Amino acid sequence: MKLLIIGGVAGGMSAAARARRLDETARIVVFERGQNVSFANCGMPYYIGAVIEDRDDLLLQTPQSLKTTFNLDVRTGHEVRAIDRRSKKVRVADLRSGTEYEESYDKLILSPGASPVIPRLPGIDHPRIKVLRNMDDMDRIKDVVDSGISSAVVVGGGYVGIEMAENLLIRGVAVDVVEMGDQIMMPLDREMARYLEEHMSAKGVRLHLAKQASGFEDDNGKVRVRISDGQTITADLVVLAVGVKPDSVLARDAGLELGRHGGIKVNERLQTSDADIYAVGDAIEVIEHVTGQPAQIPLAGPANRQGRIAADNICGRNSAYAGTSGTAIVKVFEMTGAVTGIPEKALRKLGTAYNKLYIHPGGHAGYYPGTANMHMKVLYSPDTGRILGAQIVGYDGVDKRIDVLATAMQAGMSVGDLRNLELAYAPPYGSAKDPVNMAGFVASNMMSGDVEFWFAEEYPDKTKHGVILDVRSGDEYGEWHIPNAINVPIGKLRASLGNLDRTKPLFIYCRVGFRSYLAYRVLKQAGFSVRTLAGGTLTFQAWHGSKPG
Amino acid sequence: MKLLIIGGVAGGMSAAARARRLDETARIVVFERGQNVSFANCGMPYYIGAVIEDRDDLLLQTPQSLKTTFNLDVRTGHEVRAIDRRSKKVRVADLRSGTEYEESYDKLILSPGASPVIPRLPGIDHPRIKVLRNMDDMDRIKDVVDSGISSAVVVGGGYVGIEMAENLLIRGVAVDVVEMGDQIMMPLDREMARYLEEHMSAKGVRLHLAKQASGFEDDNGKVRVRISDGQTITADLVVLAVGVKPDSVLARDAGLELGRHGGIKVNERLQTSDADIYAVGDAIEVIEHVTGQPAQIPLAGPANRQGRIAADNICGRNSAYAGTSGTAIVKVFEMTGAVTGIPEKALRKLGTAYNKLYIHPGGHAGYYPGTANMHMKVLYSPDTGRILGAQIVGYDGVDKRIDVLATAMQAGMSVGDLRNLELAYAPPYGSAKDPVNMAGFVASNMMSGDVEFWFAEEYPDKTKHGVILDVRSGDEYGEWHIPNAINVPIGKLRASLGNLDRTKPLFIYCRVGFRSYLAYRVLKQAGFSVRTLAGGTLTFQAWHGSKPG
Repeated sequence: MKLLIIGGVAGGMSAAARARRLDETARIVVFERGQNVSFANCGMPYYIGAVIEDRDDLLLQTPQSLKTTFNLDVRTGHEVRAIDRRSKKVRVADLRSGTEYEESYDKLILSPGASPVIPRLPGIDHPRIKVLRNMDDMDRIKDVVDSGISSAVVVGGGYVGIEMAENLLIRGVAVDVVEMGDQIMMPLDREMARYLEEHMSAKGVRLHLAKQASGFEDDNGKVRVRISDGQTITADLVVLAVGVKPDSVLARDAGLELGRHGGIKVNERLQTSDADIYAVGDAIEVIEHVTGQPAQIPLAGPANRQGRIAADNICGRNSAYAGTSGTAIVKVFEMTGAVTGIPEKALRKLGTAYNKLYIHPGGHAGYYPGTANMHMKVLYSPDTGRILGAQIVGYDGVDKRIDVLATAMQAGMSVGDLRNLELAYAPPYGSAKDPVNMAGFVASNMMSGDVEFWFAEEYPDKTKHGVILDVRSGDEYGEWHIPNAINVPIGKLRASLGNLDRTKPLFIYCRVGFRSYLAYRVLKQAGFSVRTLAGGTLTFQAWHGSKPG
Repeated sequence: MKLLIIGGVAGGMSAAARARRLDETARIVVFERGQNVSFANCGMPYYIGAVIEDRDDLLLQTPQSLKTTFNLDVRTGHEVRAIDRRSKKVRVADLRSGTEYEESYDKLILSPGASPVIPRLPGIDHPRIKVLRNMDDMDRIKDVVDSGISSAVVVGGGYVGIEMAENLLIRGVAVDVVEMGDQIMMPLDREMARYLEEHMSAKGVRLHLAKQASGFEDDNGKVRVRISDGQTITADLVVLAVGVKPDSVLARDAGLELGRHGGIKVNERLQTSDADIYAVGDAIEVIEHVTGQPAQIPLAGPANRQGRIAADNICGRNSAYAGTSGTAIVKVFEMTGAVTGIPEKALRKLGTAYNKLYIHPGGHAGYYPGTANMHMKVLYSPDTGRILGAQIVGYDGVDKRIDVLATAMQAGMSVGDLRNLELAYAPPYGSAKDPVNMAGFVASNMMSGDVEFWFAEEYPDKTKHGVILDVRSGDEYGEWHIPNAINVPIGKLRASLGNLDRTKPLFIYCRVGFRSYLAYRVLKQAGFSVRTLAGGTLTFQAWHGSKPG
């Protein structure tokens, strides 16, 4: 069996190694147009930031080590230009010599990845405007930073943009981030991204949200970036990180079917519309796990697992890719933002019914040093309790809780099942009632009608017809409160029931939602019409900007 | 409704707070024989170690705060002496005044906890021999440590013993740990505990395994501890931490049914044999989740959740406790040991069929600073792939992976499903193929027959009939190898097939099991009879002591 693989990173290399393990006699050739294979592209921002000091650490394998260990024929600097499906051959260009040759295949795996979107803007070809896709790009950016620059503009506030902003800043470079959306980190809902934005601002990154870079001009070797609001920012370096598009031209030219988002269409065995050609990684369209809809979700973990699955199927095992649920995480200085499943904004767009909850539990027991509140949002189906998505932003233990929620979601657990999960507890690691359990408690209270919420976005339109009641302490109320709220601390509530207006709905709140939940129970059982603010002021302020009023 | 609760920590206090939320009009009285309620008993070793600096941080609530917030009648220093089930009354002793009184109930919740086992040994009443159950005990131990002692003996190598050893050592106290078993941390299998033992030894804790304290004598105010091997150790302080037994005397005297391990017997609604009396926490016998067998598993997380469930059922909700799976974790200096489900030794004892695998993946991407190999063992059913248990010992990310495995196990996922789990990956947090995915890959290879293992415990009896083949580098082989092993590095294996003896079975190995798995695939497909060492030398050495031979 002769297997050709196009693309020698992540999915392609996973496929090659797996195919070799399953078939010692196969002839396996990997074509990689770049100079390196199997490099750690997720590590590149951190090498630029000098967090990773040794460039060689990013080279997980070399063509020579892959020959020695896996008996693979790996050809870097070789680009596949065309696929002739009828004769089962590819045409390959050796980029060094400029010569072309043909190579036949029995099976072919496409793992070309995705390339950075480069907007057609005036001045886009300025030499100090860079993208970060491969190690050559990385070296170019690092050279500029090492030369002692003082300022950079990052265009795009997604994963790469945020990681680049952090790493440039820790190199002593002043950083402006220009993002056309009204938030960074689009996989999160806006109010969840807010905590990360505030943290970045506190670290000194200047964020320009809901603004577009509209053009670039040279300014004595620097780049003057024109922003849609008329402002200009002049910087020594511009990093373009506005997103990626699947590298599906080769597949399209070969007549393979593409999906509606432009990625290569595959079945669950990862076969393209040609049964002898498989495709994996950022170039393919996957089924989004929660909605069952096709989607373009470029992530390293799925790419690696897809490579393995394609090789399994080619080598006679029967293996199916179950879909992508979009579990992802980003480090933002000391904070972490993480997501799994679908955000609220996407559920709205789809018209999918959902409930949501917000909690702010500690990463571990509050009496043990080194923890802070995390901010957790969970979305679930009102009918079945099925988990539709979760988002967490915070400090310690965010990565753990998103993985537990991702696992529960993929296992088909309901949000109520989260109550009963028995997770590992000792004070340095968690709480006897883990944040994930707490989410389950809140959700099951919602589903049983033992709590009813109002939401930050209902202020002020809905709340103006009722009374806003703050059940925090007088000191907390004095420091800041929702405009027009009255204050009855939880400890005085039972004695104050006679003074409250029974003719109007009560909108109660506290800081995180726990005291106001207790107050809800008191008031509800006393016959009041009452709702409690989901997520308390911590969510309210994130929604409305730090302190409205 | 009048609800009495016996025990004001963990389960008892969770029940009281939940009952109040569900029933504003109930009369709720909590009796606690100690001086404090709702204190953080898991934090006590760290207060002694001055990691937690403020004692008040351990007092999560006071009787006054519970009155104010929850309208609870909390009586500390009050001990319930008897239950009269016929008249539905308890007899209570006020320990301060010495007076007794009766209190009637509609429903009663028992949450008395478990008390430290105090072996009847000569000299056991020496004033410098302490146990750690409540804050009074904690204060007594801390006073002794604060007085400037130089040495301590901890009897017992379980959670409390290990945490006390660490905290005493960081206070500058020389620590000996005496443990009658041949390992610390009995919930782990012995070879997994080995990594923790080596770490403790490296930190300076002297471990005496498979030794018993047989008696105590005074030595000028110090304690001379007699050890079963004839040795004596003289120390300023002895902490007894040999285990706990359920505080079920009150229940037994009231005629309530006990389980075979001496704990209070309850149904899944957490009702005792008297329908008006519920019981929760360390005093009850639970159903162990994997085996379905009754067991005594004292853990804070389950206790808290049980309290909530008992209150739910009393207040008209219908709530079932699904059993305990024994998910637990311990910090041991810089390392973490964690477990869920059943260890191998228990499966053997039960006669349950199982397969096991060992892997040693990094806590996160190796090229990003701050990670190390973790040691993971997963046990599963050979027929169904059902996860029976998992153990992890390591540095970063151990707590996360045990929680993911615990969640997968409780969700009923098979070990093969772990392949497909989509977990959050960025270099600071994990790997594109997460350790949990890796466990799934290995298990699915085992189940499909794509790999066959030999195990450290089969050396030398089984391996002597074959050839032991080391596929690591010559340098690694030179440093240490399994006695009688021959060396063919993986990179030279394909060229050396002709030199290997085809008449004997090959027992191959490398350091963690990856290179030897590649070698297995080469050799198997070349027609050799071959098995690869599960967990490589890292597991082999843990099993046999550091470097046999």
